[in-house]
Amino acid sequence: MDFTFLGTSAGTPTRSRNVTALALSHSGQKPWYLVDCGEGTQHQLLRAHYSVMQLRAIFITHIHGDHTFGLPGLLTSASMLGRTEPLDIIAPVQTHHFITATLENSDSSLGYALNFIDSEAPDFCWQNQDFRVTNVALSHRVPCRAYVFTERNIERQLLQDKLNEDGIEPGPGWGELQKGNDVTLEDGRRLRSDDYTQTPRVARRLIVAGDNDDPTLLTDACKGSHALIHEATYTQDVADRVGPWPQHSSAEQVARFAQQAQLPGLVLTHFSSRYQSAPGSTPNINQLAAEAMQHYKGQLFLARDFDTYRLEKDLSLMCLTT
Amino acid sequence: MDFTFLGTSAGTPTRSRNVTALALSHSGQKPWYLVDCGEGTQHQLLRAHYSVMQLRAIFITHIHGDHTFGLPGLLTSASMLGRTEPLDIIAPVQTHHFITATLENSDSSLGYALNFIDSEAPDFCWQNQDFRVTNVALSHRVPCRAYVFTERNIERQLLQDKLNEDGIEPGPGWGELQKGNDVTLEDGRRLRSDDYTQTPRVARRLIVAGDNDDPTLLTDACKGSHALIHEATYTQDVADRVGPWPQHSSAEQVARFAQQAQLPGLVLTHFSSRYQSAPGSTPNINQLAAEAMQHYKGQLFLARDFDTYRLEKDLSLMCLTT
Repeated sequence: MDFTFLGTSAGTPTRSRNVTALALSHSGQKPWYLVDCGEGTQHQLLRAHYSVMQLRAIFITHIHGDHTFGLPGLLTSASMLGRTEPLDIIAPVQTHHFITATLENSDSSLGYALNFIDSEAPDFCWQNQDFRVTNVALSHRVPCRAYVFTERNIERQLLQDKLNEDGIEPGPGWGELQKGNDVTLEDGRRLRSDDYTQTPRVARRLIVAGDNDDPTLLTDACKGSHALIHEATYTQDVADRVGPWPQHSSAEQVARFAQQAQLPGLVLTHFSSRYQSAPGSTPNINQLAAEAMQHYKGQLFLARDFDTYRLEKDLSLMCLTT
Repeated sequence: MDFTFLGTSAGTPTRSRNVTALALSHSGQKPWYLVDCGEGTQHQLLRAHYSVMQLRAIFITHIHGDHTFGLPGLLTSASMLGRTEPLDIIAPVQTHHFITATLENSDSSLGYALNFIDSEAPDFCWQNQDFRVTNVALSHRVPCRAYVFTERNIERQLLQDKLNEDGIEPGPGWGELQKGNDVTLEDGRRLRSDDYTQTPRVARRLIVAGDNDDPTLLTDACKGSHALIHEATYTQDVADRVGPWPQHSSAEQVARFAQQAQLPGLVLTHFSSRYQSAPGSTPNINQLAAEAMQHYKGQLFLARDFDTYRLEKDLSLMCLTT
C-alpha cells in the first residue's frame, strides 16, 4: 500500500505546503484513491504520478474548504482530459450540494457520472477489489470522519498436501481455488477455496483521519491497524494558547494516544502555517517532531508534500522519498 | 499602471501555467484589483507581491471554472489572514450563487463583507479613486465581458499665469485647486479647479478581455485604449480543426483585429495546454507568437505566469520581467 501526500498545511497553503489531500493505492498507481481534495490538488497531481483517469474514488473527511475546494477543478479537468469512467465521491451531503451548485453555476458538464455516497450514513462501508473502507466519527467543529482502509483479496497459498490427500489432481481447478473461487469437479465434488488455501499474512490496515481534537475516538479502530495518518496542527504550547475552539490536535496529544494504542506507525500532517521548514526559523516544524518523539516510540514521520510512503506486506512503514 | 499575470493557461493548468487570473494596480501594489480567479490564484499570489489584504475589487469576465474556481479559497484565506475591509465582487449573478452556495456548504464565514455587483447589468460602471471601469459584451459560450480600465485623477498642473492674472495669491487654495477641488476665496470668489489647472497627459486605458471568438466586438472600446489583453487559445490551423464550438480566438484573428484597430499594445494569453514552452517541443508557444507577428505590427507580447507589465504615463508598454 502506497500513499503520497499532496498537501500537508492546515487552513491555508504556504509556498512549500498545499492544503490537504492524500493519494492512496493498493499496488502501483492504478487504480488509486484520493482522501480530501483541497484547492490546488489537481495542480499537485501534475507533479505526482497519479492520473485522474485512474482515480477510482474520492473520500472526503469533512466539509471545510481546505479539504474540499479542489473538487470542482479536479472533476472538470478530468472531464476535459476525456474521463468517461464513473467516479464515487464519498462525502458529507453538504459537499454533494457544493459540487452540484458549483457545476450548475459554472456551465460545467462532466463526461462521466458522479456517484455520491453519504459518508455520514450509519454503518458506512465501501469496498472494491482493493480495499474495504469503513469510517469512524471524530470530534471537530463539523462532523468529520477517519477512513479505515483494509486491504482485500490477499494472495492465497494452496494447501497442496491436503489437495493431494483428497486426490485432487493438479489442473485449472487449482488455479481457481488459489484465486479464491470455489470449484465443482467433474465427479460432482464441490471444493471450497477456503478449505484448500490459506492466506500467509494479515491484511494491511491504514487509518486516514480528518481534523480531530480527540484521538482516543480511534482507540477501537487502531486495534489491528498498522499505521495512522493524523493531523497535528499545533505544538502543545500553541494549542494551549489558541484554546479549544478550532478543535485540532497537538503533536503531543496524538503521540501520547498512538503510544497508548501501541500503533506501529504514525504519520503526522496538517500543520499550522506558522511552523516553518527553513532551518533556524521559528516556530519550526521540527518542534512538532521533537514533541511527538517525546511521547511516541513507534515509527514516526512528519509528512511533507510529495512524500510517498509504503506500508509493506511485512507491515513495516517506510518513506520512499527521504 | 502595472499588471501581473497569475495564470495564462486555457481550461486546465499545466506545470508552468496556471488557469486565468490577472493582478492590476494603478501605482505600486496597493491597492490592487484582480481580474478572474482560476483555481490556485491564492497559491500564485504567494509567489507574487500582491497581498489579499490590499485587494480592492475582483472582476470576473464569465462563469467558467477556469476563471472562477479560485474564488472560495482566496476569499476564505483572506478572512483567516484577518481581512476586515469589504470587498467588491463584480461578476455574473451565477458566480454570486456559486460563492454563496460554496460558503454555505463548507461552514465558511468571512470576517468582512462581500459586495456583489452584477457585471451583466446594463450601463455597468464601477469606479474609485484609481479607475473608472466599464465593460463590453463579448461572444463566448456563456455571457462574457471585457473590462475597460481607465485611470482617474490624473495629476493636474496649475495654470500659474492665469492665477497671477486673476490676482489669486499663492497659498493653500492653490493646493486644493491642484487636487481637483473647487475653492471659495475669502472675498467670496468661487474658483473652479478645471479653470485653473490642466492635465498634462491623456488617461491611460487598458482592456482586459475574457474568452471571446469575435475581437471586433471591441472596436469601439479600442478607440482611445492603449493596450489590450486578449485570449489567443489556438493557432489558426488548430482553431480550424477544433471548429467553432469552444468559441475562442486564434492568434491570427486577434492580431488582425489589433492591427486594424491600430492598437499600440497587445498581450496575448489563455493558451491551450497543447502549446508547450520547451524549445523544440511541438506544438510550441512560439507558433502562436509567430502567427500573431505576421499580422500585427504594434508592441506584441505573449504572457507568461508571473510576468509583470507596465503601461507607462507616456503610453508605452513594457514587460518588467523579461
